[in-house]
Amino acid sequence: MVWTPESTCGQARAGHLHTRHGTVPTPTFMPVGTVGTVKGMTMDSVRSTGAGIVLGNTYHLMLRPTAERVAKLGGLHRMMDWQGPILTDSGGFQVMSLGALRQLDEDGVTFRSHIDGSAHRLTPESSTDIQHKLDATITMAFDECPALPATPEALRKSMEMSMRWAARSREAFIARPGYGQFGIVQGGTERDLRAQSIKALTDIGFEGYAIGGLAVGEGQDLMFSTLDFTTPMMPEDKARYLMGVGTPDDLLGAVMRGVDMFDCVMPSRAGRTARAYTERGTINLRNARFAEDTRPITPYDDSPMAGRYSRAYLHHLFRAKEMLGPMLLTLHNLAYYQRLMRQIRAAIVDGTLNELAVKLRADWAQGDWSEDEWVMPSYQ
Amino acid sequence: MVWTPESTCGQARAGHLHTRHGTVPTPTFMPVGTVGTVKGMTMDSVRSTGAGIVLGNTYHLMLRPTAERVAKLGGLHRMMDWQGPILTDSGGFQVMSLGALRQLDEDGVTFRSHIDGSAHRLTPESSTDIQHKLDATITMAFDECPALPATPEALRKSMEMSMRWAARSREAFIARPGYGQFGIVQGGTERDLRAQSIKALTDIGFEGYAIGGLAVGEGQDLMFSTLDFTTPMMPEDKARYLMGVGTPDDLLGAVMRGVDMFDCVMPSRAGRTARAYTERGTINLRNARFAEDTRPITPYDDSPMAGRYSRAYLHHLFRAKEMLGPMLLTLHNLAYYQRLMRQIRAAIVDGTLNELAVKLRADWAQGDWSEDEWVMPSYQ
Ligand SMILES: [Zn+2]
Ligand SMILES: [Zn+2]
Repeated sequence: MVWTPESTCGQARAGHLHTRHGTVPTPTFMPVGTVGTVKGMTMDSVRSTGAGIVLGNTYHLMLRPTAERVAKLGGLHRMMDWQGPILTDSGGFQVMSLGALRQLDEDGVTFRSHIDGSAHRLTPESSTDIQHKLDATITMAFDECPALPATPEALRKSMEMSMRWAARSREAFIARPGYGQFGIVQGGTERDLRAQSIKALTDIGFEGYAIGGLAVGEGQDLMFSTLDFTTPMMPEDKARYLMGVGTPDDLLGAVMRGVDMFDCVMPSRAGRTARAYTERGTINLRNARFAEDTRPITPYDDSPMAGRYSRAYLHHLFRAKEMLGPMLLTLHNLAYYQRLMRQIRAAIVDGTLNELAVKLRADWAQGDWSEDEWVMPSYQ
Repeated sequence: MVWTPESTCGQARAGHLHTRHGTVPTPTFMPVGTVGTVKGMTMDSVRSTGAGIVLGNTYHLMLRPTAERVAKLGGLHRMMDWQGPILTDSGGFQVMSLGALRQLDEDGVTFRSHIDGSAHRLTPESSTDIQHKLDATITMAFDECPALPATPEALRKSMEMSMRWAARSREAFIARPGYGQFGIVQGGTERDLRAQSIKALTDIGFEGYAIGGLAVGEGQDLMFSTLDFTTPMMPEDKARYLMGVGTPDDLLGAVMRGVDMFDCVMPSRAGRTARAYTERGTINLRNARFAEDTRPITPYDDSPMAGRYSRAYLHHLFRAKEMLGPMLLTLHNLAYYQRLMRQIRAAIVDGTLNELAVKLRADWAQGDWSEDEWVMPSYQ
């Protein structure tokens, strides 16, 4: 698995991720398919948004249906009908979030299932093995992700253990053509720690590098300022993945700071709660003002649902608690995220990313289109 | 709107229903789109099963989003993205089911909304007007449907009022090219009452005739024996619609007794509760025996999901309470119902319906395929 650069614009990079399961243009946003499904969507529908790679969650899948069962079903690709690349997280982040339900030691983590309370254990070796069984195109190293704020000393200890775990993860990883493994840079918001982490990971050597320990409550300013000193220290010839990020504005800012890959439940979760992303910020379709709004969510939709459904219909579906509401709005939001990434990528190639960023931010800030300024482009 | 006969085989008829919104081969099964959506499906997905006409519910739609609002959104077709024909019920059946929440008089019914308790009234005139506002391709006459068992005297009184309501419904109906209105034959299981009802309705004159008052708990034997004497009394040159029916075996038996159209929530409701219809009867995918069953639900699937999803994956989705389970299984069941209707229609045209019926019933009775006899035809 290799990442090849194509163009740069400032710190931003356009490239391609070449994998056993297909090539993905970057920057790219990965929809989250937690337990073997992107909630409320068929994989045809996910494909139709332009998504090139999806994410699966080791923690959820190891509990149900279990890694062994996924393997018996031919791996995640075959099980969920997604032939493109799949990145799986290591389970680390979600296990750490279990709080009192987990116990950490140098070797790994013991935890209890949120489903039935049964005891399980994850180590760098078992996490890597599970990801093999899932047939992950990209395997993530097993790491610890401390909650912020944390003392520099706590961050250092945690980072150092994560680096020892990264070496063990790499040791356990079975190289196969077109497959790869990413190490995860830790160190919180501390420049020295991030530098040490990057040094440790590049000494081990991975096919790509993720930035972990951000988007955990520190706020956008601190996330961006951390990226400002972190990405320049990372290898130029490998993909960079910012985990668990984020809003459209987060994605834009992070791409401008040299990030290539993202994942986040935000667009799909918002879709289930009636919140739509648009070029003019977000709107909540449960709001009474949409009850007779015959316009589509946005005039710029190039997804399969373009021009088919009025805001009023979506409002009705959410009010009537019909499944089709979450289904359509998840599709809409994921299509918006993919459209945004295509726009950003094209601007990198054209060398016009700064201009695009100014325009995107101005539009987001402006709020929903008024009836007056509403223009229906491209389709009637 | 006209129905044209093509072939007969015994009492069974193959034909075409020609409407303003397209032509539908009959016999046909209409998926139920209660409140402006076939639960858990996009209309593309409904189309992909081969469905030619769908049903909408006046009772649900008049309460939410209201007929006026549907009209503002361009009618049901435009609102829910279904360009094919739509049949709407009159609201009568569902209002009558409200029990204590409704009051009946000669003029109509006053009832309280199950959503917010607000008071509403339906009459033959208002029901017809609402169906116009919904832009129903086929409008149903407003009738009373008594619960069975009922005394012959109660059935007669109810039937006679329904016939007066039918005349008022017809009076209120605005004829438009390609649109039509169906009268509803009542009279329970009484031959004389059914005969009187048919006489009354044909004197009024409708574009088609429905058989109401069945599938309300009387059992298949009594339903079939009622059809045995009812359909031969109905006009030969008009479509016959058996309301609210039924299982695959019900459909087969009713087609063999001269019925052309059906609707039922059964396949979609079953899909939401993990029950799959197959050529070998029904299976419940929550059952533990499917946890590692890598076979698709059926080897005969010609729907868009054919060969893509294992029983084990669907089992997993239902266990994990993922929306995709109900989505896929509703698609599967509606595709099975449409496939069954295509098979039945082809056998009518070929004059081999009796042979098909024997085979279908034997297969349903046989139960799920064993691993031994499992053969994967047509696709790998
Ligand atoms: Zn390239
Ligand atoms: Zn014909």
